[in-house]
Amino acid sequence: MHIAIASDHAAVAMKAELVSWLREAGHDVLDLGTDGEVSVDYPDYGYILADAVAQGEAELGIALCGSGIGISIAVNRNAAVRCALVSEPLSASLARSHNDANVIALGARLIGIEMAKACVTAFLETEFAGGRHCGRVEKLAHPPLHGVPA
Amino acid sequence: MHIAIASDHAAVAMKAELVSWLREAGHDVLDLGTDGEVSVDYPDYGYILADAVAQGEAELGIALCGSGIGISIAVNRNAAVRCALVSEPLSASLARSHNDANVIALGARLIGIEMAKACVTAFLETEFAGGRHCGRVEKLAHPPLHGVPA
Repeated sequence: MHIAIASDHAAVAMKAELVSWLREAGHDVLDLGTDGEVSVDYPDYGYILADAVAQGEAELGIALCGSGIGISIAVNRNAAVRCALVSEPLSASLARSHNDANVIALGARLIGIEMAKACVTAFLETEFAGGRHCGRVEKLAHPPLHGVPA
Repeated sequence: MHIAIASDHAAVAMKAELVSWLREAGHDVLDLGTDGEVSVDYPDYGYILADAVAQGEAELGIALCGSGIGISIAVNRNAAVRCALVSEPLSASLARSHNDANVIALGARLIGIEMAKACVTAFLETEFAGGRHCGRVEKLAHPPLHGVPA
């Protein structure tokens, strides 16, 4: 599977571990940075990741920052993308089955690497359930224009 | 404090309990529905809540659905709003201090009412820390226009 991943400086160690693990499992991973410990702004990396998924450069995305909160907000500014902030695998699975989420966000300072891997595994292995969820997912692609800056 | 709250049908019981509890604590609560058990679409309620916060009808908002995922995505489509999906108080506090979040999303089928109240309490009692976080929060108000439907 083609998977894009991005993080701010708070999550570079988790990103490196997830990239190695996913590549060993045979996935094609697009690593969008950041790569060092220099302080960066999570919105920049959230926007880059959302664009990569929206443009079809990856089927699914993984967004990381300290709490996962900031980058999840940034990714969801792109109406072509649905990002779920999760901290355990049940939510990661529901994000796929009910919301057809194409990005998950994880908080590298709040959960450990094994929990992160369990979330990613649940996310990658769960299919969208369709049915009654389709109309709701469609509405997420067409928000009202209030609040969108000119 | 002026607090807006909205949910889909999966979270009406939690919403009713939070509304009563917040009003007993002296808050002015704007209940935006839904109120019955008839199935509704979470994006509709997320968009209504985001608009209420963006327009200044409430200072802070609480968004509820079964997992919290769907409505958190909907709320974050509004670039004037910052919504954090949380399941414990530390994240609720970080959402305020680091991200200046003005909405929290909770999953009524994933956490219980006492955990929900603990999250809301942490959210209401924490101030934005400012400083290095200001520039990042400002960027969340100005996403690139990719993915925004015409």
